[in-house]
Amino acid sequence: MAPHGEGSEEALVVQDENRKPISSILIIIAMQTEAIPIVNKFQLKEDLDSTFPKGVPWVRYHGFYKDLRINLVWPGKDSTLGVDSVGTISASLVTYAAIQALQPDLIINAGTAGSFKVKGASISDVFLASDVAFHDRRIPIPVFDLYGVGLRQSFSTPNLLKELNLKVGKLSTGDSLDMSPQEEASIVANDASVKDMEGAAVAYVADLLKVPAIFIKAVTDIVDGEKPTSEEFLQNLAAVTAALDQAVTQVVDFINGKCLSEL
Amino acid sequence: MAPHGEGSEEALVVQDENRKPISSILIIIAMQTEAIPIVNKFQLKEDLDSTFPKGVPWVRYHGFYKDLRINLVWPGKDSTLGVDSVGTISASLVTYAAIQALQPDLIINAGTAGSFKVKGASISDVFLASDVAFHDRRIPIPVFDLYGVGLRQSFSTPNLLKELNLKVGKLSTGDSLDMSPQEEASIVANDASVKDMEGAAVAYVADLLKVPAIFIKAVTDIVDGEKPTSEEFLQNLAAVTAALDQAVTQVVDFINGKCLSEL
Repeated sequence: MAPHGEGSEEALVVQDENRKPISSILIIIAMQTEAIPIVNKFQLKEDLDSTFPKGVPWVRYHGFYKDLRINLVWPGKDSTLGVDSVGTISASLVTYAAIQALQPDLIINAGTAGSFKVKGASISDVFLASDVAFHDRRIPIPVFDLYGVGLRQSFSTPNLLKELNLKVGKLSTGDSLDMSPQEEASIVANDASVKDMEGAAVAYVADLLKVPAIFIKAVTDIVDGEKPTSEEFLQNLAAVTAALDQAVTQVVDFINGKCLSEL
Repeated sequence: MAPHGEGSEEALVVQDENRKPISSILIIIAMQTEAIPIVNKFQLKEDLDSTFPKGVPWVRYHGFYKDLRINLVWPGKDSTLGVDSVGTISASLVTYAAIQALQPDLIINAGTAGSFKVKGASISDVFLASDVAFHDRRIPIPVFDLYGVGLRQSFSTPNLLKELNLKVGKLSTGDSLDMSPQEEASIVANDASVKDMEGAAVAYVADLLKVPAIFIKAVTDIVDGEKPTSEEFLQNLAAVTAALDQAVTQVVDFINGKCLSEL
């Protein structure tokens, strides 16, 4: 890269951005049960004149906490079926629309996830993802295969990791709650410790629009354990959200007053 | 529904909309190889001051053909890997952003697809999808299971079907080019004749924002045939786009001058 010219000016702008204290964070959460404790903790208010287009079920909560403007976005209930709009498509759409409307400095994708005995995980463990990838986008054509896996590093936060008692592991994302043998093979290939249904989609959109993103995932079920995922997930969902809530609060407290390069 | 009041006024507005000639159509295509012949056929021009945010690779072509304003949107090449941004996430994002920016009367999602010997399909057959669903979003919890399948009817076009020589069948969408046994079971459960990687995502977003959508899919590979999908797909891609191009032109010619209720 030339020492003068656009490239280096852009680099300086990015450096400056990294040195300004973070002022606005966007928390993206897929399920209402996961979102509500965090909404209450930060005393966020629902946005009634929605930022989002008419017809979409997406819900925004917002408020100020210490020196931070917090927006929490949840994709809402499916308008026909009434269940949470989980999965990669809703997650990517709300991430896109929320970045456009709110221009956050940092995205936190928080939620529950499955994990693995072989990775030493227990129910209620909270992971910070070191990187994210997909496990259900198999495209066996050279280069398209890498596009399908969509491996992305999450924003590096070495100081946050030193300070807080979170596990670190790779996150793998797919649109099924269960896991086929093909998906299991991809999860192993991704060396994933945590399995969710949104992370890599949020990472894709955040990367597209150049917003740093981190991923906090609390374990509701042990995928390679004895109980079926759906049963274990429903059993633990409410209790595990307390661990998630606590971790998100610790992370937000740590972020407050810092710039991106200090995380 | 009450004979007076808001409900019926809304119904009248919708009726009026259905009786106005269609003036603006949005064609959504996942791959450049599929898009270019159609761009050339309608002499569309690339939008150089992009309608879309900085950083996204999405490409819009636009122009007028007979009485129609045509926008064709292609998600572009992945900026890191250089391959077409195929699959449901890119398709849902460009559908969302293009509807917001262009407010089309009708969406046509056109592309290549796999089909099945058992459904009587041959290479280069062109299908109009009667309805669309996902085959890789298994969520075995009541009601979430239906959300995952995401079955939606495409906009009904009985007159278009009578006029044109297209096959009719159900379309099933997933993010893998190949097909795992679990996905095969879902495709059978969806009673699908055609398998693609975008349709149900386009349908989801079009439904969210209340824009009618139809799906034209040309067969590049026979999934239950002898050749591996990826090999057959690459072999036939260029030739089959000619059949796709012809079908899209026929559909657009049929649409021209008509209102939605006449399709």
